[in-house]
Amino acid sequence: MRNKDTLKQEIMDAFHFRHATKEFDPDKQIPDEDFRFILETGRLSPSSFGFEPWRFVVVQNPELREKIKQASWGAFSKLPAASHFVIFLARTKVDTIYNSDYLQDHLKNVSHFPEEILEKFLSKVEEFQRDDFKLLDGERPLYDWASKQTYVALANMMTAAAQIGIDSCPIEGFNIEKMNQLLDEEGLLEDGHFGISVMAAFGYRTQDPRPKTRRPFDDVVKWV
Amino acid sequence: MRNKDTLKQEIMDAFHFRHATKEFDPDKQIPDEDFRFILETGRLSPSSFGFEPWRFVVVQNPELREKIKQASWGAFSKLPAASHFVIFLARTKVDTIYNSDYLQDHLKNVSHFPEEILEKFLSKVEEFQRDDFKLLDGERPLYDWASKQTYVALANMMTAAAQIGIDSCPIEGFNIEKMNQLLDEEGLLEDGHFGISVMAAFGYRTQDPRPKTRRPFDDVVKWV
Repeated sequence: MRNKDTLKQEIMDAFHFRHATKEFDPDKQIPDEDFRFILETGRLSPSSFGFEPWRFVVVQNPELREKIKQASWGAFSKLPAASHFVIFLARTKVDTIYNSDYLQDHLKNVSHFPEEILEKFLSKVEEFQRDDFKLLDGERPLYDWASKQTYVALANMMTAAAQIGIDSCPIEGFNIEKMNQLLDEEGLLEDGHFGISVMAAFGYRTQDPRPKTRRPFDDVVKWV
Repeated sequence: MRNKDTLKQEIMDAFHFRHATKEFDPDKQIPDEDFRFILETGRLSPSSFGFEPWRFVVVQNPELREKIKQASWGAFSKLPAASHFVIFLARTKVDTIYNSDYLQDHLKNVSHFPEEILEKFLSKVEEFQRDDFKLLDGERPLYDWASKQTYVALANMMTAAAQIGIDSCPIEGFNIEKMNQLLDEEGLLEDGHFGISVMAAFGYRTQDPRPKTRRPFDDVVKWV
């Protein structure tokens, strides 16, 4: 392990390097192994109860990129120039509700939960969803809860990218209904098991950003 | 800049090192400068439109820690042993709706938006909130949208911690209403401007975790 102060400084440098990149260089491609590394940081991200309620769709097809460009004001200036373009999907209620087939399968075959505690665990999840976070009041809260988890993956992917000198731009600039309709037509939502959460473009900047602005430390952090 | 492959490997190592730590060593304290570094990665995190709709409350007071321990099943086994304990607050509708005083002030005095484009920008935000993400249908969607941003800060703080050998555990195991009531009584919600989003404990593990489980790469990542 290198000197900790050097390491912390390098990480800080990455946080200052990262910015919502306005315009990407169309002539620069992220090497495959670097983008796979970025995706890996998303895949290894934590999620509530370890449910991994996400999918990362990497859109490289020019025709689909053009459709997304036209459907999303946030993506408009980033496509087609961005080297890689990711749509973060979140799993919908059919998969994330406590008694879903997806969760049963995931806990058994991915998380390797012992059979004898599975039922007890899922009743804890039910209590959490019903009473603690009140996620079962309508469709939206449960979906937004899954969506929150995708922001963890998004954050890790953007930061990891910055640490190896790759730029990114997170994108919420789209109409959710329209984008879901487009993605559904393209067969990417698996018959309603997924919906769009957020998007991100990755590549290399063409110009330096404005200086970063943030609220002062003592406004954002409170000690009690 | 060091060799990129080494750097990528070190970051991957941090992702494997990080796990939802079950039990913290009560005898080990995170050095102040390390915890400030972790908080800085949260403060420098990106957020939608740059609104920074968050506050990080570091709870070190033993009496308040005990109250949180009793009110949160997720925090129960982490307190009082965790070195540092953070409550991520999200700003409520009164601050995050497009025409709020907070946003006006934030854009002028923090983001340094030129006066002449402020109105146009805020009408774009209104359109986004009303039509694109449909955040104005009830109280909850707008709040969950702010909450999503706090998960970006949470992710960055946990990953940065892991990169310098510090453990963490994200915590959603609490009743939102009860925790908000407790935090309100403690005067931490600024008369309804904030609500609880998520929590995290930081410190040092007492034992090695179970092997990490994740869905296979090709299940989580799709290329089109």
